[in-house]
Amino acid sequence: MKTIYFVTGNQGKVLEVKNKLSGFNIDIVQKNIGYPEIQADSLEEVAEYGINHLKNKLNHPFILEDAGLFIDSLDGFPGVYSAYVYYRIGCEGILKLLENKKDRKAYFKSVYAFYNKGEKEFFIGKCDGLINREITGDKGFGYDPIFIPDGKNITFAQMDIKEKNKISHRGKALDKLTEFFKKD
Amino acid sequence: MKTIYFVTGNQGKVLEVKNKLSGFNIDIVQKNIGYPEIQADSLEEVAEYGINHLKNKLNHPFILEDAGLFIDSLDGFPGVYSAYVYYRIGCEGILKLLENKKDRKAYFKSVYAFYNKGEKEFFIGKCDGLINREITGDKGFGYDPIFIPDGKNITFAQMDIKEKNKISHRGKALDKLTEFFKKD
Repeated sequence: MKTIYFVTGNQGKVLEVKNKLSGFNIDIVQKNIGYPEIQADSLEEVAEYGINHLKNKLNHPFILEDAGLFIDSLDGFPGVYSAYVYYRIGCEGILKLLENKKDRKAYFKSVYAFYNKGEKEFFIGKCDGLINREITGDKGFGYDPIFIPDGKNITFAQMDIKEKNKISHRGKALDKLTEFFKKD
Repeated sequence: MKTIYFVTGNQGKVLEVKNKLSGFNIDIVQKNIGYPEIQADSLEEVAEYGINHLKNKLNHPFILEDAGLFIDSLDGFPGVYSAYVYYRIGCEGILKLLENKKDRKAYFKSVYAFYNKGEKEFFIGKCDGLINREITGDKGFGYDPIFIPDGKNITFAQMDIKEKNKISHRGKALDKLTEFFKKD
């Protein structure tokens, strides 16, 4: 049984990965140790910096994940600062900023990063969609109640977790991570 | 003549410090090398992390500076991410978020950090004020056109640089830094 650390404070994410990798000979162990997230323009840079910070501190291969919502007409805002912005201005703030904007295009992006003995791998998942004109639904978290993924007419917050994970950014990134372990 | 590095990409800040310290036996030298700015809740944390990153890379004492605008009714937003937020949503975005808010209170804050052989010093300057209801003035930069400091009825962007520096967050932090070097 191979041990892989998942460096995160979010137990929900850990369960998601455990569930996905249950058929493999891998033991996912949560490490809630934190790492500095830098101010950068891309999730990849944030993940890369986190890996470099952690790589000499952990004695097993490890993964970490970062995600964000990027809105076209706001030049990618809130992007890598999605969590911070959410706790300050919420979905209401985003709707306000988009009040008179016709272009509602946005995407969620997730980056899973894996590190093992000098080897770094990034698994990117993206989900295109639109920002709704109102807050709808009570499932999920964060910006889910204002995000309608392409091909659907309900928000992430109106979907059950299984339906969401099939098409979500994090679901897709996780699929790629799983593929990688399959080959391994 | 003592050499002190100023780690910044902003030549305007360097000139400001050079000007302030011109009577002292100190040579301020710009080092445009950059350092990781972490995602944190306070400017002090960002500065502290920057210092720890740089302290073994530079062979002279050094300073760095970070600043932000903190709006009360937005729970401190845009705060440590002021620059990022400015380039995405601008003064217009901030005015939109405050459209129906009666509480317009905000403050600018600047942190100058100084490092010398294991010794760290922080010099904090704060300027209280209000967010204006429109964009006014064309001097300064960033959020200056929407910020009216307490005791004035014009924005930072309507003041000349000398008038602004007398009361501004950065001016006050710089005064404290100067006091420190005077004692030294």
